Order: sequence, then C-alpha cells, then structure tokens
Amino acid sequence: MSYQIAVLAGDGIGPEVMVEARKVLKATEERFALSIEYTEYDVGGAAIDNHGCPLPDATLKGCEAADAILFGSVGGPKWEHLAPNDQPERGALLPLRGHFELFCNMRPAKLHAGLEHMSPLRSDISSRGFDVLCVRELTSGIYFGKPKGRIGEGENEEAFDTMRYSRKEIRRIAKIAFETAQGRRKKVTSVDKANVLACSVLWREVVEEVAKDFPDVELEHIYIDNATMQLLRRPDEFDVMLCSNLFGDIISDEIAMLTGSMGLLSSISMNSAGFGLYEPAGGSAPDIAGQGIANPVAQILSAALLLRHSLKQEEAATVIENAVGKALSDGYLTGELLAIEERHNAKSTSEMGDYIAKLV
Amino acid sequence: MSYQIAVLAGDGIGPEVMVEARKVLKATEERFALSIEYTEYDVGGAAIDNHGCPLPDATLKGCEAADAILFGSVGGPKWEHLAPNDQPERGALLPLRGHFELFCNMRPAKLHAGLEHMSPLRSDISSRGFDVLCVRELTSGIYFGKPKGRIGEGENEEAFDTMRYSRKEIRRIAKIAFETAQGRRKKVTSVDKANVLACSVLWREVVEEVAKDFPDVELEHIYIDNATMQLLRRPDEFDVMLCSNLFGDIISDEIAMLTGSMGLLSSISMNSAGFGLYEPAGGSAPDIAGQGIANPVAQILSAALLLRHSLKQEEAATVIENAVGKALSDGYLTGELLAIEERHNAKSTSEMGDYIAKLV
Ligand SMILES: CC(C)[C@H](C(=O)O)[C@@H](O)C(=O)O
Ligand SMILES: CC(C)[C@H](C(=O)O)[C@@H](O)C(=O)O
Repeated sequence: MSYQIAVLAGDGIGPEVMVEARKVLKATEERFALSIEYTEYDVGGAAIDNHGCPLPDATLKGCEAADAILFGSVGGPKWEHLAPNDQPERGALLPLRGHFELFCNMRPAKLHAGLEHMSPLRSDISSRGFDVLCVRELTSGIYFGKPKGRIGEGENEEAFDTMRYSRKEIRRIAKIAFETAQGRRKKVTSVDKANVLACSVLWREVVEEVAKDFPDVELEHIYIDNATMQLLRRPDEFDVMLCSNLFGDIISDEIAMLTGSMGLLSSISMNSAGFGLYEPAGGSAPDIAGQGIANPVAQILSAALLLRHSLKQEEAATVIENAVGKALSDGYLTGELLAIEERHNAKSTSEMGDYIAKLV
Repeated sequence: MSYQIAVLAGDGIGPEVMVEARKVLKATEERFALSIEYTEYDVGGAAIDNHGCPLPDATLKGCEAADAILFGSVGGPKWEHLAPNDQPERGALLPLRGHFELFCNMRPAKLHAGLEHMSPLRSDISSRGFDVLCVRELTSGIYFGKPKGRIGEGENEEAFDTMRYSRKEIRRIAKIAFETAQGRRKKVTSVDKANVLACSVLWREVVEEVAKDFPDVELEHIYIDNATMQLLRRPDEFDVMLCSNLFGDIISDEIAMLTGSMGLLSSISMNSAGFGLYEPAGGSAPDIAGQGIANPVAQILSAALLLRHSLKQEEAATVIENAVGKALSDGYLTGELLAIEERHNAKSTSEMGDYIAKLV
C-alpha cells in the first residue's frame, strides 16, 4: 500500500517545523515499512509571492490527488495590507475547508504533566490539569452562510452576514462529538447562544436528538459567554466541547491558550470520506521564523494524527505520540517552554526533530 | 430638581441586593439634598409569575416615565423550561434594550487592589493588575438583525440569523469608545473577525475613520479568537475594548471572570439621550438567593453609575464609589471574596449595605 501526502508548509515557521515532521515521518515509514510519497505545494503568503494567490490551482489539484494534507501555517506582516479575501489565512484555509467539505474540526487541548506552570491559570486551578477537546463545525454557520455583503449608501450603508445551519449539518458534527466522547470521559458540552440565536435553538434541538442515541454520554448545554468564563474557573470539568463554526473558533483558541503551550497542539479538519487537513494550532509566528527555535512538536503531532485518521495507521501514530511524550518528559524542550533561567538548556527545532525521530 | 427611578429588582438575589442599594441611595439623597422618587416594577421571572410575561406593559410604561432604570437581575431554574423567547433574560433584557435604544453598553472589569488572589489567573499575571472597559454595541448586530428564523423541512430544515451593522451604528459606538479612552489610558482595542465577516470589515473601516478624530488615542485591531487568548496572557495591556454586540457579550464576561469577583462589577446600558439601565454584571445567582450572603456591591455601584450618567450627579456618584472602596479596603467583604478559613469574618448582605450607607 502506498500513500500520497500533499505537504503545504506555508509561511513563517511553517517550513522549518515541517522539515522536522518529515524527519519523524521518514523514521516511522522505515519502522513500519510504509510507502509514503510527499509532494510539496505553495500555499498562503509563499503562494501569493510565487503565483499571485494564496491557494493556486496546482496546490488544490495536488491536494485532490493526495490522501491527506499536511499543513504548516500561513500568514505574516508582509501580506497584512491585502484585502481580507486575498490574505493568506482566509484565502487559503477557508477555500480548502469549503472545497474538501472538511466539516469536522477537532482541536485537543491538554495540559501536559510537568508543564502545568505554562498555563496562565492560577496554580490551584492548573494543578488539577485538564484535557478538553473542541469539536468544531467547520464548513457552515456564519463563515459560509449566504447572503453576505453590503447594501446602501453613505451612513446608511450596511454590511451583513448570515449564520445558517441545517439539521443535517448539526447532526453530523454532533454525532462525531458523542462518538468521540465515548472514547474519552463521556461528557459533551454543547456551546450555543440559544437565548439569542435561532441557529442555536435548532442546534440545541438536534443535539438533544442525537444524545438519545448515546445514553452513556452526559450532555450539557452552555451559553458561549458562560463557557468562556467557566473554562477559566474549572477547565477540568469539560471533556468534549461541541461548537458551531464561530463559537468553536473562540473556544478552541481559549483552551489552547489555557495550556500555555500552543507549540504542542495540533488539529484535524476532516470530511466524511476520512480525507483531512492536519495542522499545528499555533500560527506562523513570523517573529521567530528562521531562528531555529520554533517548537516542531505540534507539526510532528499533526503528522501522527494524519497517519491515524487519514491513513488508518493507528500503531504508527501511537509510536510518534509516545516518542513526543518521552522527549518532553526527558526534558527535551524548546525555549518557550522553559523558565528564563533555564533557557540555556533549550533544544533547537532540529534537535527536537532529531531526538523524536531517533525515539521512533 | 426631582428625579424618578424605575426599580426593577427581578429574581434571585436581585431583590435583596436592591434593598442595600436603596439604603445607600437614601443616605446619598440626604447628604446631597437630592429628591428621588422610586417606583418598583415586576420584571423577569417575578413578572412571569405575577403577570404571565417577563416584561409587562406596566413595567415598560413605568420605565418610560422614569429618568433611569435601576435593574437587579433576572432568571432562574424555575423558568428554564420556557421557550427561549419567553424566558426572563431574553424576554426582559432584549426588549428593554431595543425599546429604549440602549445601544451603548459599558462593562468595566478592574482587579481591585488586595483582591488579586480572586483572579483565576496565575499570580505573576494577576499581580500586574488590570483595568479593562468593554464598550459593547447593544442594539444591533446578530441580536436584532432580520431575517431570523427557520425554513425548509425534515433534515434540510435550516435556521438562520442575520448579523447586520450600518456605518451609523458603528460610528456612534466607536465615538463613545474613543471619548471614554481619552479619560483613561488612551488606547482602544477594536475586536472583530474581519478575516471572515463582512460586518467586521465595515466595522474596521468605520473605526479607522473615527480614530482620525482622536489622534491622542492609540487604536489596535484584534480578532475575537485572538482577543480571548491575549486577555489571559496580558490583560494589563488592554484599556478600552470596543466590541459588536455578540463579541462584547463574550469579552465582557471573560474580563468579568478574570477579576474573579463578579459581585463587584456593574454595567451601564445607555441611549443617546442619556437614559440608561444600570445593572450588576453577575446573574441572579438563585443558588444563594434568600440567604443574606449575596454581595450587594455591584448593585450599589450600579446606583452610583446611574447617578453619574443619567442624573448627572457626579459628586454623589463619586462619594458612593469611594465609600465602597473604603469598605473593601477596611476588609468589609462578603464570603465569596474570602478564603475558606476566613469565612467566619464574612459580612452579610445587609451589613455591607449598612456600612457603605454609613460611610456615605
Ligand atoms: C484564519 C481564520 C479564517 C481561521 C478561522 O477563523 O477559522 C483561524 O482563526 C482558525 O481558527 O483556523
Ligand atoms: C441574557 C442575554 C440575552 C444577555 C446577552 O447576551 O446580551 C446577557 O448574556 C448579557 O450579556 O447581558
């Protein structure tokens, strides 16, 4: 069996952490006698510079021909003056999600044992640890709803966006949240604003229906404003958080920041055929790009998730994850995870990759 | 000069903290020889029980006849089974905001000196303190945008909401944010999602225009997802946060929770004529209602804000605020602000009110 992976490294630290993910993948291929072919494509700012648009046709075609997309990160100050539609993030990520109908986005945020001090939370809260998974609907809601635009003149000119959800769309993402919760702590917290939004009222109705098929999973509903608050006080009481597109954008970033170590977090965006895009949770971090200090772990874990979910190589994925776990507990850490007085022990981007590849 | 205040105590702890606010107002009237008439009206769950709807006509008429509304809090488990439209929060607050066009909502969140340990943030972050004011647009956006509803059948049935903003609506709230920032630390952070929403693109355009008239105020733009994160890492770097209705709902709750002492926070909802509704930031807290342990400070500070903004009694407002400040620094605290081993020193709701009234 031979696989094709489209590699979209992108901007900022994207290319340098991708090198490390490739090292680890190579070691994994050897150990498990997998045959994977990689093709690199431009995306984001790099694609704007080379081809005039953030998602060139060749990139899209390459992704279509692949079994999965390993994505780095896009964006940076160089392209911030562009119109919103032409910017790297919006111009690459949203069309990729739409084109491949990657409706299911999973963003795990777990406080790693030993790294509790990285969390911005008070120590008595962070010491309890937490392990939250945000399951976010990614191809509908206010991101893609029509009509969207402007109307009118002068001071009466109005802009408008439409939030829109069908029962079908809510049902398919809700099912995944419940199924996933069954393999975890069996609790789903559905985030909405049912006291204001018609979409949220329907969301709640459908989620209640889906819940009936999962009697072993506890369901609770929470308003988005209250969710943002409760995560600060008692993050350990959440397991799976089921969110619409916009609310998931907010919640997934909040829980990522609560870990204090975004360089360790990766995310999955999948469609119903198992095709997916795998990417680190952090951004392109242009401020530290090219210095060899970026943390490659999130990119390496993205590769592990790709192996598990799109290539169905559960064992290979687990071996990578264990190697990462061992590297971290061996004290192999990049600088941002160390106290200032410990920074002289920081490992470089490539030292991290080498060590994890060796462990695999 | 004689004033009329409509008192809408509502549910849960609303009535008991309102008693204390009235005590403090009475002391203030005496000291400043003000003549204020109070009329009490049912609202929220209490109004559902007594009149069958959360905002009876008599209440609305009473508010129309008044110079300002002193609001308690509404809602509780007793009314949670009702349809969203009929529930106390949505059925009372949204129509009041709409009817009086209370477009300007200000929610301050300040970490009180001496109460840093209440914040859920790590001590090195909370010890830097913070003082953030959320200026939220309150009568437009996705809360009130039309169309809103459902269409279609079976699994294709869809719900939809419309987010909508005009230049005019954005301009008037942005102006207030900049004016307010001039009296503070001269920084406005405008929160949007301009990489996805047409409304946010217009929002950014208009905010930039308004900023030109305030060259002494620094303006920065931040995406809502990033804002939620940065508040956890560096709350001290924010001054005024300018938000649309939905994003302000989220940000104002997040910053309130970051103080860890919601019982001290109050908020203003005002229209362009200076008419306003003044309310505590916390909810009706039905779990502690009737026990005499609720913190009345937020309600008392709401009364101070009412005096300042709707009755233009700046001096009277400041006297109340100073009295509250002194009570807190004298260690007059309700139980939720004390460590468990200190709770025997907790002051009751009425002890707090008595002491603050005496100081006035
Ligand atoms: C870049 C942006 C369009 C995107 C989103 O809002 O979905 C990003 O914030 C994310 O969460 O992946
Ligand atoms: C009760 C609800 C409709 C309201 C809102 O969303 O505005 C509340 O959360 C608030 O912030 O005042």
